[in-house]
Amino acid sequence: MTQSVNRQWRLAARPTGMVDDSHFNWVEEPVPTLKADGEVLVRVLYLSADPTQRGWISRDTYLPAVPIGDVVRSFAAGKVVESRNENFAPGDLVSGMFGWQDYAVVNGSVSGALNKIPKGVPIELSLSALGLTGLTAYFGLLDVGRPTEGETVVVSGAAGATGSAVGQIAKIKGCRVIGIAGGAEKCAWLTREAGFDATIDYKAEDVKARLRELCPKGIDIYFDNVGGDILDAALANLAFRGRVVICGAISGYNTNEPPPGPKNYLNLLVQRGRMEGFIILDYIPRAGAAIKELGAWVAAGKLKDQVDVQVGLENAPKTLRRLFMGENRGKQLLKIADP
Amino acid sequence: MTQSVNRQWRLAARPTGMVDDSHFNWVEEPVPTLKADGEVLVRVLYLSADPTQRGWISRDTYLPAVPIGDVVRSFAAGKVVESRNENFAPGDLVSGMFGWQDYAVVNGSVSGALNKIPKGVPIELSLSALGLTGLTAYFGLLDVGRPTEGETVVVSGAAGATGSAVGQIAKIKGCRVIGIAGGAEKCAWLTREAGFDATIDYKAEDVKARLRELCPKGIDIYFDNVGGDILDAALANLAFRGRVVICGAISGYNTNEPPPGPKNYLNLLVQRGRMEGFIILDYIPRAGAAIKELGAWVAAGKLKDQVDVQVGLENAPKTLRRLFMGENRGKQLLKIADP
Repeated sequence: MTQSVNRQWRLAARPTGMVDDSHFNWVEEPVPTLKADGEVLVRVLYLSADPTQRGWISRDTYLPAVPIGDVVRSFAAGKVVESRNENFAPGDLVSGMFGWQDYAVVNGSVSGALNKIPKGVPIELSLSALGLTGLTAYFGLLDVGRPTEGETVVVSGAAGATGSAVGQIAKIKGCRVIGIAGGAEKCAWLTREAGFDATIDYKAEDVKARLRELCPKGIDIYFDNVGGDILDAALANLAFRGRVVICGAISGYNTNEPPPGPKNYLNLLVQRGRMEGFIILDYIPRAGAAIKELGAWVAAGKLKDQVDVQVGLENAPKTLRRLFMGENRGKQLLKIADP
Repeated sequence: MTQSVNRQWRLAARPTGMVDDSHFNWVEEPVPTLKADGEVLVRVLYLSADPTQRGWISRDTYLPAVPIGDVVRSFAAGKVVESRNENFAPGDLVSGMFGWQDYAVVNGSVSGALNKIPKGVPIELSLSALGLTGLTAYFGLLDVGRPTEGETVVVSGAAGATGSAVGQIAKIKGCRVIGIAGGAEKCAWLTREAGFDATIDYKAEDVKARLRELCPKGIDIYFDNVGGDILDAALANLAFRGRVVICGAISGYNTNEPPPGPKNYLNLLVQRGRMEGFIILDYIPRAGAAIKELGAWVAAGKLKDQVDVQVGLENAPKTLRRLFMGENRGKQLLKIADP
């Protein structure tokens, strides 16, 4: 399995508009060696493509910006090939922030830097429903949104990995769930496979008017992955004491100017509403119990995981861009080597 | 004291830009008579001018819009002149939604419609620090903002009735308080009289840059009375787990188009922040204990009340407009008759 070259994508320039190959440099280096006790050499197998990466390469956010010239930051899964850490042995499957490269040296003694993938959990699932994506849906909906039975939950980016999990968890909690997605095919998947009560195709329908129709008593929880006009439409239809969970704003990630803010935010006052953001990294200390519950839902067929696997490290920039073009179906992964 | 004519301002047209006299009709009618048990005839003495009235005359908000042709809705204080209600006797000082008129008939049996002003409390104070204004500051800051000692609180519209109370209550709770107001005179009052730690004169200073200087660790609570660019500047300087309390948005109340939304709202995500609106009417059941505490602070000199009294019912539209021109100093009242 070991090769002598470590292929990498390094950040060449900070994108302002749509991200493309020109923002990255392809570099080939020798495979790194372990230099200190505690370190682990990982062969990266799958890269996780996440909308938040678009922020990481542009500016300081909740993490410092990736410096120009550095390997592109990416959550990923891989296999231990060499270890100077007693907690990790060659052959262990692990996840962590390995970046867009074939091999990563990770200090396994740093809390959270290297996480073992539990035996029996498929790698792909460990990066989607049973990984950060599932946890994002779980804590964002349950801890920030706080649904109660019978409430109406609306989620945007509903056919995405996080959105589809949010809707399914809301169904498990007894809510009525409406998904907003782009295109008839995605919408059909949401109602047929993921059990959503209704969908809105934002490419073909008037989102604000349809929300009014579908939510005559207003939206109790709006889980926002997209921002922009759809966030405004949801705010306009907020129910009394409605909650807006800010998970992301993909509609604005690749624009040159920050998009306009939600002009209907004053409906938070009229409806005594709450709009709250969160970052999944804060919830890692509670991940164990959550993954156990998510795993039980997956096993029971209540939480369906859709994974979209592209192949080849050379396609990393293109694969990231699929998220912003709405091309992915569920969790976007890039397989760069066989386990 | 009794006169035969009931002078009124009735709503003539829904304003779109700046409200002025043309949106109201001056009407003179006979003083109304009591027709049913439970009713009380009130001689109105003081009208409370509140920014939220601008919404009431324009559209349905948390209350239905005032119908065209109706007396303009206004909170007010007055004296009972006639009563068919055993709980109210002639001479009682009361407050309620009496409107822009000399006399109001109120059903004293409807909960909250007619409230006795406690003996010994000056009428003006009962409409400001010990009335809805003080309660708005109290519950908005303490219940929605939830300050803890040592936190940094920023309030806009700081020289207004609500804003100055918010800052003083935050000081009582051990916070560092920065007020944003328009003009050197207002700012001087805030630091000299109201005990604010610092101020920003938004007419002369760069609010965003000054907030960065004055809040190097970010803003823990931003209490917003104004909306617009100042809300955006505060969001840009939000601290980790910062809270934005949406009390109003006076900067946009008299514009033809809804003003742009807060384009920096995504900082709620980066900082795990919360933006929440509230309406003081929801807190009326808890008003008693709050007014007791507010009264103790006033008595101890910890909560200073600034009242700006104009005179004459004919000046009601002009007095309301003073709020939007930034002409008021503290609580804006209009005295229309002597007690």
